[in-house]
Amino acid sequence: MIDLRSDTVTKPDEAMREAAKTAEVGDDVYGEDPTVNELESRAADLVGKEDALYVPTGTMGNQLAARTHTERGQEILVERESHIYKWELGGLAQLSSLQVRTLDGGERGIPTPEQVREGYVEEDAHRPGTGLLSLENTHNSKGGVAIEPEKIAAAAEAAHDLDIPVHLDGARVCNAAVALDVPVHEVTESVDTVMFCLSKGLGAPVGSILAGPEAFIATARRNRKLFGGGMRQVGVVAGPGLEALGNVERLAEDHENAKTLAAGLDELPGLSVPEPETNIVLVDTSAADVDADGFLTACEETGVIGSKFGEETVRFCTHWDVDAEDMETTVDRVASVL
Amino acid sequence: MIDLRSDTVTKPDEAMREAAKTAEVGDDVYGEDPTVNELESRAADLVGKEDALYVPTGTMGNQLAARTHTERGQEILVERESHIYKWELGGLAQLSSLQVRTLDGGERGIPTPEQVREGYVEEDAHRPGTGLLSLENTHNSKGGVAIEPEKIAAAAEAAHDLDIPVHLDGARVCNAAVALDVPVHEVTESVDTVMFCLSKGLGAPVGSILAGPEAFIATARRNRKLFGGGMRQVGVVAGPGLEALGNVERLAEDHENAKTLAAGLDELPGLSVPEPETNIVLVDTSAADVDADGFLTACEETGVIGSKFGEETVRFCTHWDVDAEDMETTVDRVASVL
Amino acid sequence: MIDLRSDTVTKPDEAMREAAKTAEVGDDVYGEDPTVNELESRAADLVGKEDALYVPTGTMGNQLAARTHTERGQEILVERESHIYKWELGGLAQLSSLQVRTLDGGERGIPTPEQVREGYVEEDAHRPGTGLLSLENTHNSKGGVAIEPEKIAAAAEAAHDLDIPVHLDGARVCNAAVALDVPVHEVTESVDTVMFCLSKGLGAPVGSILAGPEAFIATARRNRKLFGGGMRQVGVVAGPGLEALGNVERLAEDHENAKTLAAGLDELPGLSVPEPETNIVLVDTSAADVDADGFLTACEETGVIGSKFGEETVRFCTHWDVDAEDMETTVDRVASVL
Amino acid sequence: MIDLRSDTVTKPDEAMREAAKTAEVGDDVYGEDPTVNELESRAADLVGKEDALYVPTGTMGNQLAARTHTERGQEILVERESHIYKWELGGLAQLSSLQVRTLDGGERGIPTPEQVREGYVEEDAHRPGTGLLSLENTHNSKGGVAIEPEKIAAAAEAAHDLDIPVHLDGARVCNAAVALDVPVHEVTESVDTVMFCLSKGLGAPVGSILAGPEAFIATARRNRKLFGGGMRQVGVVAGPGLEALGNVERLAEDHENAKTLAAGLDELPGLSVPEPETNIVLVDTSAADVDADGFLTACEETGVIGSKFGEETVRFCTHWDVDAEDMETTVDRVASVL
Repeated sequence: MIDLRSDTVTKPDEAMREAAKTAEVGDDVYGEDPTVNELESRAADLVGKEDALYVPTGTMGNQLAARTHTERGQEILVERESHIYKWELGGLAQLSSLQVRTLDGGERGIPTPEQVREGYVEEDAHRPGTGLLSLENTHNSKGGVAIEPEKIAAAAEAAHDLDIPVHLDGARVCNAAVALDVPVHEVTESVDTVMFCLSKGLGAPVGSILAGPEAFIATARRNRKLFGGGMRQVGVVAGPGLEALGNVERLAEDHENAKTLAAGLDELPGLSVPEPETNIVLVDTSAADVDADGFLTACEETGVIGSKFGEETVRFCTHWDVDAEDMETTVDRVASVL
Repeated sequence: MIDLRSDTVTKPDEAMREAAKTAEVGDDVYGEDPTVNELESRAADLVGKEDALYVPTGTMGNQLAARTHTERGQEILVERESHIYKWELGGLAQLSSLQVRTLDGGERGIPTPEQVREGYVEEDAHRPGTGLLSLENTHNSKGGVAIEPEKIAAAAEAAHDLDIPVHLDGARVCNAAVALDVPVHEVTESVDTVMFCLSKGLGAPVGSILAGPEAFIATARRNRKLFGGGMRQVGVVAGPGLEALGNVERLAEDHENAKTLAAGLDELPGLSVPEPETNIVLVDTSAADVDADGFLTACEETGVIGSKFGEETVRFCTHWDVDAEDMETTVDRVASVL
Repeated sequence: MIDLRSDTVTKPDEAMREAAKTAEVGDDVYGEDPTVNELESRAADLVGKEDALYVPTGTMGNQLAARTHTERGQEILVERESHIYKWELGGLAQLSSLQVRTLDGGERGIPTPEQVREGYVEEDAHRPGTGLLSLENTHNSKGGVAIEPEKIAAAAEAAHDLDIPVHLDGARVCNAAVALDVPVHEVTESVDTVMFCLSKGLGAPVGSILAGPEAFIATARRNRKLFGGGMRQVGVVAGPGLEALGNVERLAEDHENAKTLAAGLDELPGLSVPEPETNIVLVDTSAADVDADGFLTACEETGVIGSKFGEETVRFCTHWDVDAEDMETTVDRVASVL
Repeated sequence: MIDLRSDTVTKPDEAMREAAKTAEVGDDVYGEDPTVNELESRAADLVGKEDALYVPTGTMGNQLAARTHTERGQEILVERESHIYKWELGGLAQLSSLQVRTLDGGERGIPTPEQVREGYVEEDAHRPGTGLLSLENTHNSKGGVAIEPEKIAAAAEAAHDLDIPVHLDGARVCNAAVALDVPVHEVTESVDTVMFCLSKGLGAPVGSILAGPEAFIATARRNRKLFGGGMRQVGVVAGPGLEALGNVERLAEDHENAKTLAAGLDELPGLSVPEPETNIVLVDTSAADVDADGFLTACEETGVIGSKFGEETVRFCTHWDVDAEDMETTVDRVASVL
């Protein structure tokens, strides 16, 4: 089975497994796990922030950021197709009582400075004030587009001019950096905090990072306890996470594979597949007289699995458990389906 | 001073004041205030619902509806310029932990059935399910447009097909009915619950009504206690409210006055004023080389006050404390300003 | 029917009804209702605070205080039988996400300074910090005991030493002051904020007051909007409220009547009735071989109604709609029941 | 350094580390991690429940239980010194808006059936209804007492008679079972759901289990996503967790060591140390003219660390990284301090 459902499905490699076995550990609730301490330090460096916090999931990292940045009774600005708003079970309202205001980030899911200014609400007698702007890069729902540092910076600057902090859901921000051929910290430079996942393209089995200013991370650490994320001998998973940090450059292969796959699929009758910027391939089946469900079922019978992304849109996601040959095989199998 | 800021500024008339004085009262927490009981019964009839609840404000009525219709962890669909979302201090998230999903209701602020279906979220492992659709009529931010019963019904039917209940923020639903020349209950027929204000065009000093099915109102009554709205000898204000119910037809005068005012203002150089459907007149000052703040200040010096509705938009609202002559005077005064 | 269920059942007198009719009114959302402005000013003076806010109910006043004093993630210290905790539908958690820590205030419902210190929680990695101490005077569940200013001050001082503000649920604080023969402001001097009801012994049909520092009241005013308590021509009920402020001294009659009633009932076979300090008479029926429900039903058949306060405890509450003669009649009727 | 601060400080043994390395893994968000599936199945068996869910922390397990069992607007009954109430940052109010009602479980921290019935609140117009009873076994704050199955059952039965479900915070429930010499499922039989920790005495580096009925666990799984606990290749930590399940009987050593330690310390001048039932030793320093802080500092200088449990109470906790010899050494070192 060629599993292209998500880059979360990757299995840890030998080095990660070895790291899980040999990691020096301690009780992280007391701050005594040397492996997670090293991971947090190196992860902070990667994204150019003062400090970082290891969290079990990207969802927890995003929700912690929302809660830690804001005060009771505020609004949060999010892109209307963003993960933090759409796929996290309403956590912004459930866990932090935040009212959401959505910005339409267009084809690439990045709000313009004008949109940020228009979406901003000044606190008054009838309106909650805006407390946070949250951006996403790469933008998952828009097909993994790699948003340029200057676009992020423009939106962030608009927010900062209004005294609003900025969080980046950078679950796949390393993919963005690699695709844009810039260091990761350049992509994250203009935002106050960033969450990125060790468990997606970087290949770690578990875990994400929330990075930002030292005082912010201290408060987020306390909120992590509230959310139930304060684990003990966390080095067992932080060790593989440290290995994962070494996999940033490797993401280029996923992008290459995604391009190969997209080009092959786009030539098939009835499929329309734009060239991907990173590792997410969106397949439009509308001209093939088959909807997403039907297409996925047929693919699965040939040994290829993807995920539904719309009524007539399917997502294939490349990752380090698939290679160039798998791409060719996938195209052949899909061809046999149509 | 001609006060056109809002139809909430109206002072009670002699009949209302007399009703405040002479109302038979009791302790409504025990259900023993005959005046509020009569008001709730007659108000329910007006909007064609089984039962009704008197609430101190329209905001409480709307927020009660949101809380009573939904369960923990759901989403609510609202029009993006609607009062319940924009002007109620984020109560949906603060009081009921609801995540908002906004629909763009276009020029008239009424979502289409397609938009309702698109905005609907089926509960799954990652997404909160949609628990309520909230509509607004007349739509304040859109200039008091009177939305036709069939438009409301179309959106409501789409929601009902998805097993989603529908609430109508009908703060000015009587204005809509009068403008459309239909009974109020015809406008509210397709929705499950409706809130309308006694204290706007109907002229009561205080109070609004939340109407709906009997079981719903029973639960809302309990939630009203939670929100701090369970008052005692409420007949003192419910009495004037009963008088206010008799003022529905009178709203036609406000609409007439609004049309007169709009026509007069539209002829002035630099002002663009569409013909109002009800009692809300939106004045676009953009061609007059003056912004809303400057325009309002200048108007106030001549003895006319309105409210800011946008950077270059001013709202004048007619009501029963102003008459046809005031409209002429207002046009004259505004003319002197330009 | 002699109605002794609560002092909330009083009907407004002629002066109040006249005030409802003649009150000068305006739109209080704009701060333009002169009657409520005067009421807020005079009410603040009565309890010796800088500013005050009119609210539709005591529950709203208490819940507003809790929300306005605290930050997200804090605890509130309350007496374990207090109204704010027991009878307000869990509003502390529902409206403000506050965790409650209860203090056992003993027979008179007033925590000692030691209890306050013990209940205090310092914010750390695992514990929410204490954000507010809430006291109650007179204490309803303890039989309307009038707690001495020095007792309130001792608890308040302990809280202040820990940098915790203090709110007083003074729904019947005027009863306390009259019973103790001190000015009301002396009883409320040591607390930061106080809520008291116009609609109980003072006789107003509707409304309560939340008083405190000017900046606090400004924030509470905004939160009142959130809770749906921002009414319009509120003078119609604030006028009677102003009249009610003149009824403080009259409460002595209610206390006298309560003493008469208690003494009469205590002589009846099987009833045990301690001498009341204010207007609340608690009747212990345990020696009479009848439970509260049975006793109340029997009383009602003779034309006397009270309220259940425990399995074998009934509450009779005096107020200005009952007089000394009613007390005698009540004793006679209850005697006929036993 | 002899580290007796907590049984959470244990380092994984070779078998666990090997399991971390070799675990068969998959993406648990898709339900495809065979190791966690096996762990959940075996953990459910251990406590005699239909199904189970792996969670990163005990706190998340408890908070998930509270949220999953209850509806909006309810109360939860908890023991007043229980972990779920005292040490979880107010999560009951913060994450689930639950109002807490505390029961005083006395010296052993177990409420009687009478207390459960007294604490129960029937939902009415003024009171939130009780939605859950939460118990704790062993009870940490009471010194790790092992509460007998029949005591748990009595409280649970009282709750069930009132239609209230029961959750057990069994972070150390295996210690209770071992101390009482009964199978774990016998201790948990009477409760609906139970959380227990793999990362305490059982020695796993990370993780806890929430077990209960199948439908409950399905809902809890969704709520785990909301709380940010839905991890990916979780087998890496579930593998060590499976090993940990084999360590139940081994807890007897910790209990033996605790008894040895307590007996030795109790003979020292000024210390009062009751015989422990499980692995928690509470040392009362009040007769030694030293407070907890001073005592702990002095101990640390000799190479023994514990944790503060009160102004004059220190907790020493035994676990599998300390042995009988360490107990003797500890007594010697403490002796040198006094």
